[in-house]
Amino acid sequence: MSSPRRPAVVLLSGGLDSTTTLATARAEGFDCYALTVDYGQRHQVELEAARRVAQALGAREHAVLQVDLRRFGGSALTADLAIPAGRDPAAMTDIPPTYVPARNTVFLALALAWAETLGAEDLFIGVNALDYSGYPDCRPEYIEAFERMANLATRAGVEGRSRFRIHAPLIAASKAEIVRRARALGVDLGLTWSCYDPQPGGRPCGVCDSCVFRRKGFAEAGLVDPLSPRPR
Amino acid sequence: MSSPRRPAVVLLSGGLDSTTTLATARAEGFDCYALTVDYGQRHQVELEAARRVAQALGAREHAVLQVDLRRFGGSALTADLAIPAGRDPAAMTDIPPTYVPARNTVFLALALAWAETLGAEDLFIGVNALDYSGYPDCRPEYIEAFERMANLATRAGVEGRSRFRIHAPLIAASKAEIVRRARALGVDLGLTWSCYDPQPGGRPCGVCDSCVFRRKGFAEAGLVDPLSPRPR
Repeated sequence: MSSPRRPAVVLLSGGLDSTTTLATARAEGFDCYALTVDYGQRHQVELEAARRVAQALGAREHAVLQVDLRRFGGSALTADLAIPAGRDPAAMTDIPPTYVPARNTVFLALALAWAETLGAEDLFIGVNALDYSGYPDCRPEYIEAFERMANLATRAGVEGRSRFRIHAPLIAASKAEIVRRARALGVDLGLTWSCYDPQPGGRPCGVCDSCVFRRKGFAEAGLVDPLSPRPR
Repeated sequence: MSSPRRPAVVLLSGGLDSTTTLATARAEGFDCYALTVDYGQRHQVELEAARRVAQALGAREHAVLQVDLRRFGGSALTADLAIPAGRDPAAMTDIPPTYVPARNTVFLALALAWAETLGAEDLFIGVNALDYSGYPDCRPEYIEAFERMANLATRAGVEGRSRFRIHAPLIAASKAEIVRRARALGVDLGLTWSCYDPQPGGRPCGVCDSCVFRRKGFAEAGLVDPLSPRPR
């Protein structure tokens, strides 16, 4: 490399959205430090997906940090609560039990800590406020409020040496647009994992919100999901 | 108890300020859930202090959560950097290397996660912007920005069921006022731990910023620190 690329911290769960976000950051020329949080999620298999994706997309480093949010519970992903199944995206008007209290705030706080030590000004998160489950911490007003807080929280922000920016490049995209963008960026979506409720044999359940949105995205994009090779 | 008390999450490091904050929350009638973060700090002895304090002050629960910020480093408390010694408080105009990038943001994010699962609206943090080391995440404007973000981040905030408040009861107090308040609340400050750089035999170093401020506080309050019984 002739000129140094600017560093960015990219939150990476190993799912469709965060993988496409990492590919986007890379395409924008950032040197990507991928951060995955092992928060005790029931779909631990996504951690393996994150490792595959970080390697395939050439992350400079990949940190997997343990923060056991099961201590607090309160979510179907971290406690013994049922995962909603077979919901119609058009009818998803409430915040479902898969919401993990303050999860993106915990994730972004950790990303901010790493960014400040790296001297990075740019944080990427794959939130999406269109084809999503209604989680409050996926909305533009939340991201803006976090960015404002981050610049008051840090030495770098206060000393005026840097200005943190929270990039959410997918926030207004449909799932179909995300699938198409990943394809255009050459991402192998077979490396990713979306399902909240992995089945025996390592198959996606096909009926949780995350599976439903993923299927909708591929269908509307007119593409076949490499994780579900059979026609639907 | 005849009427249920309102729950609050109180960040507790085991030091002078957070202990006085816990005593304040209790005195205000809150049912206190103390949260301590084991972030890999070199003064791990403060975790023991936090356990003693939580018990002595009757916390309903005490959670000690591990989040290894040494993975990111960038601070004299989490990496192999020298701790400043013998600094004059009046001359502390810059942010010292004991600043831990985004620490209070990580702590408050975790406190928010617990608060939301508990149904608590109140978070307490013992930040202090007067006799302090100039850390950016101890200032009122930072606390206000976090509170605003928190109410956009959460199900409880969005649904209007609750309104999170970040209480920083010591933010404008001098160290002498904090020592006096602790005394007035009947807190045994011999249970606490402040030093960043514990010495062999479990003694405080006496020269780090935290020791300097603690000594200043006791001296100006005209009280003897139970951790340093010899007159200075």
